[in-house]
Amino acid sequence: MRLANFFPIWDQLTDSEKNRLEDAAIFRAADRGTQLHGGDADCIGLLVVCSGQLRAYILNDEGREITLYRLFDHDICLFSASCMLRDIQFDIFIEAETDCELWIIPTPVYKEIMDGSAVVANYTNRIISSRFSEVMWLMEQVLWKSFDKRLASFLLDEMNITGDSTISMTHEKIASHLGTAREVVTRMLKYFQSEGLVKLSRGTVEIIDKEGLEALE
Amino acid sequence: MRLANFFPIWDQLTDSEKNRLEDAAIFRAADRGTQLHGGDADCIGLLVVCSGQLRAYILNDEGREITLYRLFDHDICLFSASCMLRDIQFDIFIEAETDCELWIIPTPVYKEIMDGSAVVANYTNRIISSRFSEVMWLMEQVLWKSFDKRLASFLLDEMNITGDSTISMTHEKIASHLGTAREVVTRMLKYFQSEGLVKLSRGTVEIIDKEGLEALE
Repeated sequence: MRLANFFPIWDQLTDSEKNRLEDAAIFRAADRGTQLHGGDADCIGLLVVCSGQLRAYILNDEGREITLYRLFDHDICLFSASCMLRDIQFDIFIEAETDCELWIIPTPVYKEIMDGSAVVANYTNRIISSRFSEVMWLMEQVLWKSFDKRLASFLLDEMNITGDSTISMTHEKIASHLGTAREVVTRMLKYFQSEGLVKLSRGTVEIIDKEGLEALE
Repeated sequence: MRLANFFPIWDQLTDSEKNRLEDAAIFRAADRGTQLHGGDADCIGLLVVCSGQLRAYILNDEGREITLYRLFDHDICLFSASCMLRDIQFDIFIEAETDCELWIIPTPVYKEIMDGSAVVANYTNRIISSRFSEVMWLMEQVLWKSFDKRLASFLLDEMNITGDSTISMTHEKIASHLGTAREVVTRMLKYFQSEGLVKLSRGTVEIIDKEGLEALE
């Protein structure tokens, strides 16, 4: 689990940058459900995902959530170091969605390297642009895609991520991912069931007609 | 109208970078309504706004629009050069919302400087972060703010920008700014009128109770 194997532009760094990062980075395991950023968690640093899955989401005053994107191994989470980017003026929450292993690069160390290196600054640029693109995709979904299509996409994505056609997740949790209310999810899932697309049991949604859901998307 | 007076980090550039930018930049006037980026317009370069007002928006297949943000003098429009940022994977449209004067920095020239300069790369970073923040703000509005509040904010912003309490804009155009249908705007404006907040005439909305609209926000 060497940082060198997980940090995407390692080969483009100078030796002194490599040493600085290796000396400063902290390896950490995070249990499923751990809040890594947002709320009371502070600006801990860049997270380099070695294994597991992170979820980035936003939260409103009433406790409603929407998932912005997921991060997987070899991905880098920048927003857990967003205090170094003074023009980022929004709060994102990051949680471990499964048990994870991470390298944490402390914020001041990364910032110092980024300030002095065009390579690292341009790479940081690419990370922000990627996340921005994911949020724009979501924005278009929320604005212009009907909820049945969004729910169908979500179920298919989940199946893709876990490799299991049975999704173990409450309607409440699905609602949190999609930024809506539980009742809206329950109503649409019941409709999907009546159409023979899914089978509902307590706490699970089983996809029984993948092609049917794909046709909805 | 020297570029030096409008390009925010001019003092931090090297002499050769300054010369390169000054030699390459093109000064251009754009009439109100000119499409500067998106659709058939190509990746013309960074726009440095000297005077006037630009509007960035997205558009769906059915021709529905939503305004993402506005740019004013001394602002820099990066998305008109988004072909240099390969991780930006969404289409934004940029139009001159008033008559404008702009410097255009050709994309390859800016990219070359950015690739070699930590200062310029970090500055580019800040621009992307700012725009990302504006889009996140909008996302939260769309997800979690009722339409009456969004419309009230929009009318107050317009009054702020133009300095005029009479907003000359069709309901159709307001709907395009807010990503909704004309009927939704008309219905809410009529409600605002019945509450004594605005006065409607053909093609204009006059704000007659600013504090009342502010209380709604």
